[in-house]
Amino acid sequence: MPKGKPTDVPDDGLTTRQRRNRPVLAVHTGDMKGKSTAAFGMALRAWNQGWSIGVFQFVKSAKWRVGEEAAFRALDASGAGGSVEWHKMGEGWSWARKRGTEDDHAKDAREGWAEIRRRLAEQRHDFYVLDEFTYPLRWGWIDTDEVVEALSTRPGRQHVVITGRQAPPALVAAADLVVDMTKVKHPMDSGQKGQRGIEW
Amino acid sequence: MPKGKPTDVPDDGLTTRQRRNRPVLAVHTGDMKGKSTAAFGMALRAWNQGWSIGVFQFVKSAKWRVGEEAAFRALDASGAGGSVEWHKMGEGWSWARKRGTEDDHAKDAREGWAEIRRRLAEQRHDFYVLDEFTYPLRWGWIDTDEVVEALSTRPGRQHVVITGRQAPPALVAAADLVVDMTKVKHPMDSGQKGQRGIEW
Repeated sequence: MPKGKPTDVPDDGLTTRQRRNRPVLAVHTGDMKGKSTAAFGMALRAWNQGWSIGVFQFVKSAKWRVGEEAAFRALDASGAGGSVEWHKMGEGWSWARKRGTEDDHAKDAREGWAEIRRRLAEQRHDFYVLDEFTYPLRWGWIDTDEVVEALSTRPGRQHVVITGRQAPPALVAAADLVVDMTKVKHPMDSGQKGQRGIEW
Repeated sequence: MPKGKPTDVPDDGLTTRQRRNRPVLAVHTGDMKGKSTAAFGMALRAWNQGWSIGVFQFVKSAKWRVGEEAAFRALDASGAGGSVEWHKMGEGWSWARKRGTEDDHAKDAREGWAEIRRRLAEQRHDFYVLDEFTYPLRWGWIDTDEVVEALSTRPGRQHVVITGRQAPPALVAAADLVVDMTKVKHPMDSGQKGQRGIEW
């Protein structure tokens, strides 16, 4: 496979090296599965670079992504690559003094974003996965403009991948890389339910 | 996130449990990156199930997917999940007595498929990644009908994920799960080249 070639070179005053090393804001959206899966696939490469990885799951159920979480905890423990922190809203953010209340997901989501914002400011991680983060944005729990502002002005070389359906247009506009996962065919169409090892 | 619900239940004589546990043939196609990345993300879940994983890379360069390969070798070595075998056409298939000749990729690709076919027949792995496998099919190096026949009649519970652009229609027709990765926006459009940790 040949490497992709730029279709044109912008007149932005940056050297090729500077342009090459710009931190990436990626958005994986669309109706199909694979959005988070591909984000965790990217995190494998980040791990191999020895980067500090922070995963923040904006989902209610703590049972989601158990396979990915187990794998990244094993990678973290292996000591061979980067470090991995894995935080879940579903069981209350690990840094929060008390567990999230079952009935105030909006507040939990805002707490999660506030922490991410702090970490971005202090350049805590090299690679962030904000999993299912589009939902609190769509639902108005977190202000999209504030997120775009914080991401656009983040210091240093921090890569951020955001997943979830229906990414807000302002977020898509701010992103460097946007992938839309489109369903062509899915087993659930023919009555098949999700199965262990494949869906989770 | 609610679990997906089947839109209808087919009259195929299978119980829900049987239907649920059918092995999956997935195809990740489309022009955008994320096809292989999502396949390796799926493999994380397979690893967490303790499954035997076989990765077969149908690419010329042995440098591709170094991050993913390093991560899966670390996961394999951790002993906490399943086993992972990683085979690359680019440096000559590991089971081949002599290294592949630089100038006969078609022959190398056919050797790779012959080995996969043998392994499917003997149910060697639980989860296969045939990375960039659509290319030897598109180029006529490997017969698509033969592949579809072998995959459709594979015994047991072997999951297979095939990645690559322009998946042949017969393969798409045979697949249970097809995702099309569509490009919305890519940094290379604005002159950015691939970078370490992000693209590989």
